[in-house]
Amino acid sequence: MPSPLFEKIALVGIGLIGSSLARVIRRENLAGHIAISTRSAATLARAEELGLGDSYSTDARDAVRDADLVIVSVPVGSSGAVAEDIAPSLRKGCILTDVGSTKASVIAQMQPFVPEGVHFIPGHPLAGTEKSGPDAGFADLFTNRWCIFTPLPDTDAEALEKLSEFWRRCGSNIDTMDATHHDMTLAIVSHLPHIIAYNIVGTADDLETVTKSEVIKYSASGFRDFTRLAASDPTMWRDVCLHNKDAILEMLSRFSEDLASLQRAIRWGDGDKLFDIFTRTRAIRRSIVEAGQDTDAPDFGRQAAERK
Amino acid sequence: MPSPLFEKIALVGIGLIGSSLARVIRRENLAGHIAISTRSAATLARAEELGLGDSYSTDARDAVRDADLVIVSVPVGSSGAVAEDIAPSLRKGCILTDVGSTKASVIAQMQPFVPEGVHFIPGHPLAGTEKSGPDAGFADLFTNRWCIFTPLPDTDAEALEKLSEFWRRCGSNIDTMDATHHDMTLAIVSHLPHIIAYNIVGTADDLETVTKSEVIKYSASGFRDFTRLAASDPTMWRDVCLHNKDAILEMLSRFSEDLASLQRAIRWGDGDKLFDIFTRTRAIRRSIVEAGQDTDAPDFGRQAAERK
Ligand SMILES: NC(=O)c1ccc[n+]([C@@H]2O[C@H](COP(=O)([O-])OP(=O)(O)OC[C@H]3O[C@@H](n4cnc5c(N)ncnc54)[C@H](OP(=O)(O)O)[C@@H]3O)[C@@H](O)[C@H]2O)c1
Ligand SMILES: NC(=O)c1ccc[n+]([C@@H]2O[C@H](COP(=O)([O-])OP(=O)(O)OC[C@H]3O[C@@H](n4cnc5c(N)ncnc54)[C@H](OP(=O)(O)O)[C@@H]3O)[C@@H](O)[C@H]2O)c1
Repeated sequence: MPSPLFEKIALVGIGLIGSSLARVIRRENLAGHIAISTRSAATLARAEELGLGDSYSTDARDAVRDADLVIVSVPVGSSGAVAEDIAPSLRKGCILTDVGSTKASVIAQMQPFVPEGVHFIPGHPLAGTEKSGPDAGFADLFTNRWCIFTPLPDTDAEALEKLSEFWRRCGSNIDTMDATHHDMTLAIVSHLPHIIAYNIVGTADDLETVTKSEVIKYSASGFRDFTRLAASDPTMWRDVCLHNKDAILEMLSRFSEDLASLQRAIRWGDGDKLFDIFTRTRAIRRSIVEAGQDTDAPDFGRQAAERK
Repeated sequence: MPSPLFEKIALVGIGLIGSSLARVIRRENLAGHIAISTRSAATLARAEELGLGDSYSTDARDAVRDADLVIVSVPVGSSGAVAEDIAPSLRKGCILTDVGSTKASVIAQMQPFVPEGVHFIPGHPLAGTEKSGPDAGFADLFTNRWCIFTPLPDTDAEALEKLSEFWRRCGSNIDTMDATHHDMTLAIVSHLPHIIAYNIVGTADDLETVTKSEVIKYSASGFRDFTRLAASDPTMWRDVCLHNKDAILEMLSRFSEDLASLQRAIRWGDGDKLFDIFTRTRAIRRSIVEAGQDTDAPDFGRQAAERK
């Protein structure tokens, strides 16, 4: 077996993302030692039961000591506090990265605490599910998914290449862009869809004319596709909204303008306009399926699954 | 083999729904004869190649003659014209039903043409996919799905029971409600989700700051869940919007109000409010999964599918 890529990897945060990392690091032999830390004793105990690492601590400073790679996987709103906490214990030359869903804010929060000689490389694996916690993770989460880095102007090329190699061995493809562009892109491909999904589920929940049990009973007609996103972790999404505010507000206002125009077409019975709007969106679906980013099975293949 | 439920079933319209009906009617031996008709020679030829029926015609009057069950499966905006066309050829005592996604409008369009002695029972199978045309259908489409009837005050109980038996043998569960309540319920569980999905995909398509190829590349982060609905048939959805206008506008305005309030919470950094909104929606997801209306596999089980 070749020697591991890193001597010691410290995982700060061991939820869906952190625990998926622990599993793939073990499977691919990417670390000589996996040190796990998380805030609460309960989550830590669960990680230990699952055998996710080689050492366990609720003290992140303990975990990061001597690590040559530190991966912070906590809600983006906590990344500043975590950086402040671990900074004095980071080993010179180590790579510090994160997995947060927003990047400009994480950089603003963490960068001030990063000691001289530590390579801070902000990252974001575009991989996740609607589940959270250490039980939700699995080693294949990152397979064929993108991992985006938003390096800083002075990022060390060698450290970036080593971290890229790490993520490639986790199964991911690497992309690099600046933090602002990342935040704008994710606002449309991820943040807006989640917010809209939360909103429509909330609207349904409030109706007086249609009961909740009817909504649930008949949800297969379209509604249920939104509920998966709307079941995602509230803390994570609160933090995303607070920490990518400008880009999200920009996307929301465009979405609302477009919706007002569509609403007007419905009100005035403008069939041609509706037909045009409903036609152009098919091309995007086709491209997504062609790009291998989704399955073409009707109904996401659920019918087939349900028949079993 | 027991004798079939109907002597002759005429299918007017042979797209996703009509052709799924043809397949399940054959498999379950529900008709002595399946007569197929559709407007265009091309679709009819395809239905014949697929062997979906026993006789084929582009003239719906031919198909419905002597039928004891006639099922109209065309876009809701065409149901009036179809009813007018076939009315003089309907056999006394036959059951006439439809599968349209809106009900009050279909009743208003068809009812005036229904001859004395014909049992008109409006229906709506809550089963579909984003595909259309005769190739898209499959016999299991209706398995474990709801079929909703919106009977008229003078609907014959025996005819209603016979049609219910037909749909049960197609695999469906039967529900009955009035047309207005149907239209309100479907507006929230189906029509609003489709409209929102079309809208968000349109918004993404229009961006200058994020390219279309980036949207496609990173779509697995949430966006792609919407694209399936937004790939549905434009004619069908134009007609739904035009023919369930009031209920849809009501749902749209509630949705927009809620979204404005969420947007305000983001703008003012109201984390507690965001957390509350994002928390209550999880319960609905849980209920949908518990009610067997969706799979609990993370990511709709796509990860598992992709790993193969
Ligand atoms: N879920 C996704 O789909 C996804 C995808 C890509 C990126 N991300 C990003 O990945 C990060 C982690 O998400 P996740 O899904 O793994 O979350 P998760 O399953 O909820 O796990 C969160 C982890 O962070 C810890 N944590 C929570 N609040 C904290 C705080 N205030 N201070 C320190 N630690 C705290 C938790 O510790 P305790 O349990 O001990 O409290 C737990 O170890 C987030 O930044 C998120 O934006 C998520
Ligand atoms: N798709 C769903 O998910 C779903 C679910 C439940 C209910 N429904 C309802 O089922 C009905 C049919 O939908 P579908 O998905 O089966 O559609 P589809 O696959 O597009 O097939 C439509 C059928 O209607 C015919 N047609 C189209 N325009 C017509 C017109 N102006 N006059 C007469 N016939 C016309 C087509 O004939 P040609 O091909 O010969 O032109 C074809 O046979 C609609 O009322 C829809 O609301 C759909």
